[in-house]
Amino acid sequence: MAEAAAQDLLLAAAFVSDAQYNRNIPFRTSPEAVRLYHLYNHWMMRTATYFFIFLNLSLALFEEPAVYPLPFLATSVLEVLCLLVFLGRLTHFAHVTLHNVFWKDAKNICIMGAILLSLTDLGIYGVLRLYGVRSIRWSRFMRPIFLINFAESRQIRRALRSIRNTLPEITYVFLLFMFSLLMFSLMALKLFGERNLQTAEGLPYFRNYLEIVFDLYVLVTTANSPDVMMPAFDFSSWYALFFIAFVIVNTYIFMSLFLAVVYNNYKKHLKNEIRKLAYMKRRKMIEAFNLLKEEEGEQFVVREARWKQLVKLVAPDTSNSHRELLLRISDDEQKGFVDKKSFVQLADLLNIQVVTLKIRRHPLARWAPALYGSAPSRLLRGLVRHRAFVWTFDAIILINAVFIALDEDSISYAEWVFLALYVIEILLKVYTYEPREFFGKTQFWNWFDTLIIFAALTATILNATLQSTMRYNSQQILDIVFILRVLRLIRIVDSIQRFQVIMNTLINIVPTMLTFGGLTLVVYCVFAIIGMELFHGKIQYFPANSNAPHALECGNPALKDSLFARGKYCKNNFNNFASSFIVLMELTVVNQWHVFASAFANVTGQPAKLYFIAFHIVMVIIIVNIFVSFILEAFFVEYSLEKSEVETAIEQKIQELGMGVQEDELQHEQLLDNMESAEHELEGDGGAKAQSKGLVFKIASKRYRTVDALLQRMFEAEIPLEDEGPSFEEILNLSPSSAVPRSPSSESAA
Amino acid sequence: MAEAAAQDLLLAAAFVSDAQYNRNIPFRTSPEAVRLYHLYNHWMMRTATYFFIFLNLSLALFEEPAVYPLPFLATSVLEVLCLLVFLGRLTHFAHVTLHNVFWKDAKNICIMGAILLSLTDLGIYGVLRLYGVRSIRWSRFMRPIFLINFAESRQIRRALRSIRNTLPEITYVFLLFMFSLLMFSLMALKLFGERNLQTAEGLPYFRNYLEIVFDLYVLVTTANSPDVMMPAFDFSSWYALFFIAFVIVNTYIFMSLFLAVVYNNYKKHLKNEIRKLAYMKRRKMIEAFNLLKEEEGEQFVVREARWKQLVKLVAPDTSNSHRELLLRISDDEQKGFVDKKSFVQLADLLNIQVVTLKIRRHPLARWAPALYGSAPSRLLRGLVRHRAFVWTFDAIILINAVFIALDEDSISYAEWVFLALYVIEILLKVYTYEPREFFGKTQFWNWFDTLIIFAALTATILNATLQSTMRYNSQQILDIVFILRVLRLIRIVDSIQRFQVIMNTLINIVPTMLTFGGLTLVVYCVFAIIGMELFHGKIQYFPANSNAPHALECGNPALKDSLFARGKYCKNNFNNFASSFIVLMELTVVNQWHVFASAFANVTGQPAKLYFIAFHIVMVIIIVNIFVSFILEAFFVEYSLEKSEVETAIEQKIQELGMGVQEDELQHEQLLDNMESAEHELEGDGGAKAQSKGLVFKIASKRYRTVDALLQRMFEAEIPLEDEGPSFEEILNLSPSSAVPRSPSSESAA
Repeated sequence: MAEAAAQDLLLAAAFVSDAQYNRNIPFRTSPEAVRLYHLYNHWMMRTATYFFIFLNLSLALFEEPAVYPLPFLATSVLEVLCLLVFLGRLTHFAHVTLHNVFWKDAKNICIMGAILLSLTDLGIYGVLRLYGVRSIRWSRFMRPIFLINFAESRQIRRALRSIRNTLPEITYVFLLFMFSLLMFSLMALKLFGERNLQTAEGLPYFRNYLEIVFDLYVLVTTANSPDVMMPAFDFSSWYALFFIAFVIVNTYIFMSLFLAVVYNNYKKHLKNEIRKLAYMKRRKMIEAFNLLKEEEGEQFVVREARWKQLVKLVAPDTSNSHRELLLRISDDEQKGFVDKKSFVQLADLLNIQVVTLKIRRHPLARWAPALYGSAPSRLLRGLVRHRAFVWTFDAIILINAVFIALDEDSISYAEWVFLALYVIEILLKVYTYEPREFFGKTQFWNWFDTLIIFAALTATILNATLQSTMRYNSQQILDIVFILRVLRLIRIVDSIQRFQVIMNTLINIVPTMLTFGGLTLVVYCVFAIIGMELFHGKIQYFPANSNAPHALECGNPALKDSLFARGKYCKNNFNNFASSFIVLMELTVVNQWHVFASAFANVTGQPAKLYFIAFHIVMVIIIVNIFVSFILEAFFVEYSLEKSEVETAIEQKIQELGMGVQEDELQHEQLLDNMESAEHELEGDGGAKAQSKGLVFKIASKRYRTVDALLQRMFEAEIPLEDEGPSFEEILNLSPSSAVPRSPSSESAA
Repeated sequence: MAEAAAQDLLLAAAFVSDAQYNRNIPFRTSPEAVRLYHLYNHWMMRTATYFFIFLNLSLALFEEPAVYPLPFLATSVLEVLCLLVFLGRLTHFAHVTLHNVFWKDAKNICIMGAILLSLTDLGIYGVLRLYGVRSIRWSRFMRPIFLINFAESRQIRRALRSIRNTLPEITYVFLLFMFSLLMFSLMALKLFGERNLQTAEGLPYFRNYLEIVFDLYVLVTTANSPDVMMPAFDFSSWYALFFIAFVIVNTYIFMSLFLAVVYNNYKKHLKNEIRKLAYMKRRKMIEAFNLLKEEEGEQFVVREARWKQLVKLVAPDTSNSHRELLLRISDDEQKGFVDKKSFVQLADLLNIQVVTLKIRRHPLARWAPALYGSAPSRLLRGLVRHRAFVWTFDAIILINAVFIALDEDSISYAEWVFLALYVIEILLKVYTYEPREFFGKTQFWNWFDTLIIFAALTATILNATLQSTMRYNSQQILDIVFILRVLRLIRIVDSIQRFQVIMNTLINIVPTMLTFGGLTLVVYCVFAIIGMELFHGKIQYFPANSNAPHALECGNPALKDSLFARGKYCKNNFNNFASSFIVLMELTVVNQWHVFASAFANVTGQPAKLYFIAFHIVMVIIIVNIFVSFILEAFFVEYSLEKSEVETAIEQKIQELGMGVQEDELQHEQLLDNMESAEHELEGDGGAKAQSKGLVFKIASKRYRTVDALLQRMFEAEIPLEDEGPSFEEILNLSPSSAVPRSPSSESAA
């Protein structure tokens, strides 16, 4: 009986934990499966999976053509190891989830297929290699599949889903755009084709239809403006009108239309996904409640002891006082149990980063109270807390900036003075504020300052030592010192209120930016591997004073007099994984991409241009636009919360209990002042109320909330607390067209 | 008494007309003032004003430095004439509006100031010219003031207001962006400054801080990517990371942030403006009602006769039947009067373009009924109405496209065949459909097809005649023929349903695009005039085979070996108004703008770069972003209406009366089929119901509604019909922060 209760508790903990982290894995509810599931979600297991995914991806750095060559045996052993880990992870997952769910899920099939094909390919390649036959490692394209398809990469899959959903509409706009492009090209052929004009390079101008289409496609990206226009413009000024019309229609209108379509779909699907997540969370919490409920009078409830066990299981790191606070919020009237309505909120409660501020005395105040409390010490602390202290150091930073700009290449005495000043600043702050508070989890800028200063100090000392002992300047260390010195200046931005709002948006964007990083990585990997197969070795880089044949033409006579060779772009090639990435980055920036396309087409064949056009369509038209949509949406969400201050019921309750600190008070000097006064009170009356336990709860600053979390809260505010939401299957089938229910309750009733 | 009534009617008509066209001029209500006001709003007066505004702006084409030189006397006479017209218009306005309003309005003061200064400047310049002294015509900068400040240019002023409102927020983002730029520049100086690197042109690389700032600003616009990176990248691959970080932070994140800020403000202010307009309209209709109301039982109403007089005054062009329809909608129960609630809707009623479709027989059916009704004729008409007829001609157009592409430069026989086929198509359609219906006001594509075909036919015949009689090919005519032939292909797009939706968006965008055209014109004019003063004559264009000194360096030895001269950009100069415009257009497209900036800086001085940076900030960062915002918003409005079909009460009533034709039926074959069947009925029973009067009302297709109108309707749907809205002064002071009232009625009650 007790064992059954323990198993229920474990299962409920799994549900609550899933609700808290928005995991949607339909796991089996047998006791062993639940235990395996807990293990499956352990952070070490997840970190290990990611490590092997990235190891697998970075193998391309060591395989032929390699940046850092490793023997084939080493890379293949590593690859097999990665694949085995993936297989292990998948097997683990298969034991956790339901069998029919596992075999129906395309993700799992994909992973298995990819593992199988990779092993086969590796085997064939190895055997052929033994016989001295060089073949293509085609399975390398499939490596990003692991990044996409493991259950952990929910965000990347969501972005990909968003792209897939956008595709039909994008396709129509794209076809219309292509039609317009082809029509303008036809007009250009008719207008300029027979004029015998020449480009600035002396090549025939607008003679061949396909070349015109390519040139005008490049003009849409603006990369060859105004060059493509000049011959016609020189011939007659009126022809400029053709190009102006072209740019207005294709560059301005169509490209904006692409953004509009992508953004519109992004918004629509984002709302739908968020809604699904919110309903899923609710449903899981109800499952957990049903496992733990006991009858109490007319209703079912969860008793206090049970509830505490659950929280201890779900969030083992929370302090006793924090748990006590959560209980007091959930069991408002201290009846000894938690009802369904309050229980359902537990996931949100756990998600709100409540920082427990222990009102502790400064260690020095404990060790040397007389000294720390003396008049000069108090004056000093008063000075440090004063606004003028911040201003003084802002001024010092500005003066420092001037010194950095004027500074010669080595490190001057002024630099030592500035470093000393910064160190003194940090020491003074630590003297004034409680150190554990000063270096709290959410004190981003304190950490930032301290790390930058101490890194700079270390590097500077290291450099000085090297210089004085070995008369040698390490360029790497100097570079790092320079960068650290400049980074220090960022601090000044955070001391201006208006900039903080913008910085908050930027900081909140970072986590989701990682999703785009992942997406970009996937696209880059695929294109880099294709690019290496197509263009490897065709273009070489020679140092400036090389006397290799065709050094000026990047080792390929086909590039003689080309813009590519003249621009000294030879180092932009597909000869290894790293430089392929840099080329793709440059192609993403768009400018001069036609020079790259033409050069690689010249050294291989004209169809090579299709590779570059395909990359432009995928990366610039789709992914960059999704990125822009994402920033727009993030900004609007941030902005609307700035105004309307959606505060959840939970936060209000913390305030009601008088145990919270308003976020507005979070100017940290002020907070510490409050605490100090509380401290004095403590000393006075020994303490009777909540605050006098030496605890203040603070809701982690808004600046560290992600956009997703904000959106989810906005949506949840619309679901009434009683609403249990649709069932699991209904949730999964929600379509975006019903994404904004006028009345969520009526919908769930249907 | 009768005269007083007539005066009231005139005043009410002025109110209704203002409500209908969203004019917000606080005019005087005395009878003469109202009469003057009617004259002031006459379309001829407005057209004349616009004509003189554009004449005044285009004077720059004829003044030194001129595209088409005119003697100074001629241009100054024209300018004085324009200024007199402006003064006359302003005097007229002063007689219409209230005195204190007139003198408080900055617009009027601006115009007066501009007129005065222009005359003074013209006088001084003229006198100095007589004495042979060349001075600057500085008042030319002020010409766009007339375009902005005349009461007619409401849209442009609204866009400018939107920009002004966005400025504070943009400024903060811009400062942060500048800070980031300066910091990265500092880092670049420290990292690369001492490396003695050289650019591809052999110039020193990243030595001077100001030059680095400029180079990195150019990199933000992506115009010098990857050139700016190559020297550092060649030195060490790791330095690419610096540029990648720079591009991610500044190009991708900051530029998206600019768009987000601009878009957010645009949306906010757009909503506020639309709300103001909607309330203003309501208020004016109530004023009109109060003038005409008579007591009827317990309520005030407007009697039928009065109402009809009013409508006749406001919209003299509407047919009797249309007026009758409006009355039946307003006086639903045919009580002989219109109540307040219905009266208020009059402005909207008048704004809905109701097309009166007279069910007329085809002229041929009247003149030769036997022939037209005969079996072969019926078969023919059946064929033309069949879907296959459209498909056949789509196929013909596609074949034609191939012929155009393959065609030699003169006109082949195939072209005559195609022209003949198209003419036959049009004749067949006119034979089948009623001609006045076929060429109705809203039949855009029919007009488009017919005009294109007949223009092409005329030009082709003209060309053939010239060729056969004078053995001479006029290149201009041939160019036009080529363009017309290609434009013909557009038709194929409209026959695909999915493309139609996108085309609708594009067509709806056109009217507001004109606003951006106006805005762009203002910015271009100012920058062109400044540019001509700064850079006139510094760079010359010489034809390819010229032997003038420095012909290859654009006539200026300072440009020797510059990218500008090498790119053969010499014709991009500020030597006259037209070429200045083309240069500014190229700067708007952004690519290669740094080449222009450097060249003009080389021939004058380095501060000249500021001119180009200023233009980039104003045009690209602000105006292009507003344009993109506008397209995004237009697309979303279109899209949401596609889905939810906001149909107003008025449209529903037309349907209720059974006198409407559903928009969905507007596939015109179908409509005409319906009409034909109605016609048959007519012949059958002589007609008793509304439809049998031979009239069908059709609400003009959604595709011709502007975004503004759609937005206004969306907002009006939220105001209850009883709500009279706030008073005039309150409306003018509405702030965007209260732009989305939760409950509009409660707000107006406050």
